[in-house]
Amino acid sequence: MKKIVVLLSGGMDSTTLLHELTECYDEVAAISFNYGQKHKKELEYAKKTCKKLGVEHKIVDISVFNELIDQSSLTGDIPVPHGHYEEESMKQTVVPNRNMILIAMATAWAVNKGYENVAYAAHSGDHAIYPDCRPGFFFYLDRAVNEGNYGNVHLRAPYINMDKTDIAEIGLKMGIDYDEETWTCYEGGFSPCGKCGACVERAEALELAQKRIDMDKSHSH
Amino acid sequence: MKKIVVLLSGGMDSTTLLHELTECYDEVAAISFNYGQKHKKELEYAKKTCKKLGVEHKIVDISVFNELIDQSSLTGDIPVPHGHYEEESMKQTVVPNRNMILIAMATAWAVNKGYENVAYAAHSGDHAIYPDCRPGFFFYLDRAVNEGNYGNVHLRAPYINMDKTDIAEIGLKMGIDYDEETWTCYEGGFSPCGKCGACVERAEALELAQKRIDMDKSHSH
Repeated sequence: MKKIVVLLSGGMDSTTLLHELTECYDEVAAISFNYGQKHKKELEYAKKTCKKLGVEHKIVDISVFNELIDQSSLTGDIPVPHGHYEEESMKQTVVPNRNMILIAMATAWAVNKGYENVAYAAHSGDHAIYPDCRPGFFFYLDRAVNEGNYGNVHLRAPYINMDKTDIAEIGLKMGIDYDEETWTCYEGGFSPCGKCGACVERAEALELAQKRIDMDKSHSH
Repeated sequence: MKKIVVLLSGGMDSTTLLHELTECYDEVAAISFNYGQKHKKELEYAKKTCKKLGVEHKIVDISVFNELIDQSSLTGDIPVPHGHYEEESMKQTVVPNRNMILIAMATAWAVNKGYENVAYAAHSGDHAIYPDCRPGFFFYLDRAVNEGNYGNVHLRAPYINMDKTDIAEIGLKMGIDYDEETWTCYEGGFSPCGKCGACVERAEALELAQKRIDMDKSHSH
């Protein structure tokens, strides 16, 4: 019996990961966090996906987190920057040490449930500005998770060396309807703003992934 | 300017550490957590110590944590076991992955404040049953903390290879009045129960440390 807890934001990457893991693990449970993000809407999408896949879903309110930080545009009063992730302005969207906090809590839940794996959907597109999505961070945190829990738990990051287009390609091939099933925009308005870094990257990844799929199809005829 | 955030429970070990660090760092701030522990009283002691030392003190309520776990006698309905830490029964006091969660949050606060160090008072007496106090865990988590925050932060655990008696000796020599300034008992009653593992270890450490100090004194005459 292989059991895994997945950190699910409700965005493209973690939603794709959840879909993939339900196909290769015996038991899958998802955990989402309300940390006062402006784009809280993603949680509704997370809920919907878990319902569809029949996966246990836990939402934990850690908005107390905001007492500790005041400098990220994802939670504070600073406007969300527009453009690409690589740009300096996107550093404003870094919530210090966020992934370690979320992974640490997901691990506690996993241990309590007797699950031996925790997964998160870090990928190479985030490496440039989010250090807690990089392979080095993942490498050491996995070992800390393992050492800290009697050698019983491992952290998984299957997308760590893939980019958003690779992930979109997996998801499109699995039939995920990204517009219906995921939320990406950092603004959290009625419909996606189309301008923030998250929106821009998403649109590019989906377009490129679809082109790849179409090319594969045309070549196989 | 060396700046450090200390995880302060209000018990012997972290209180001693806070005293020591105020002597060798330029700026020290302390963070304590209310995670629904039965011995919440320790937080009052933490507050008192910070006031005495003139140290900034943050208390964060993370009792939401209890939604994730249900199997520790420190937070749930299971009675606190009596006896020594080494005994099997003391495993009931393990809150899964607790230290990683606390350190992760302390790190977020430190980064936000522009502090480059986070310290916790793990020591060898806790190694037997608390895996998140062991050197292996500390080693990897320090690296994850560093990788995850642009190489700007380090985790410190100056007592990792010392035992509780060594710590008590440092504190007694510094003039810490442990009865007045710290709380150890897991039960959290009006006065310490004297029977839980924490009480037993504390009494033994203080007695032994005092003997060592007396011996040093008598030999120096």
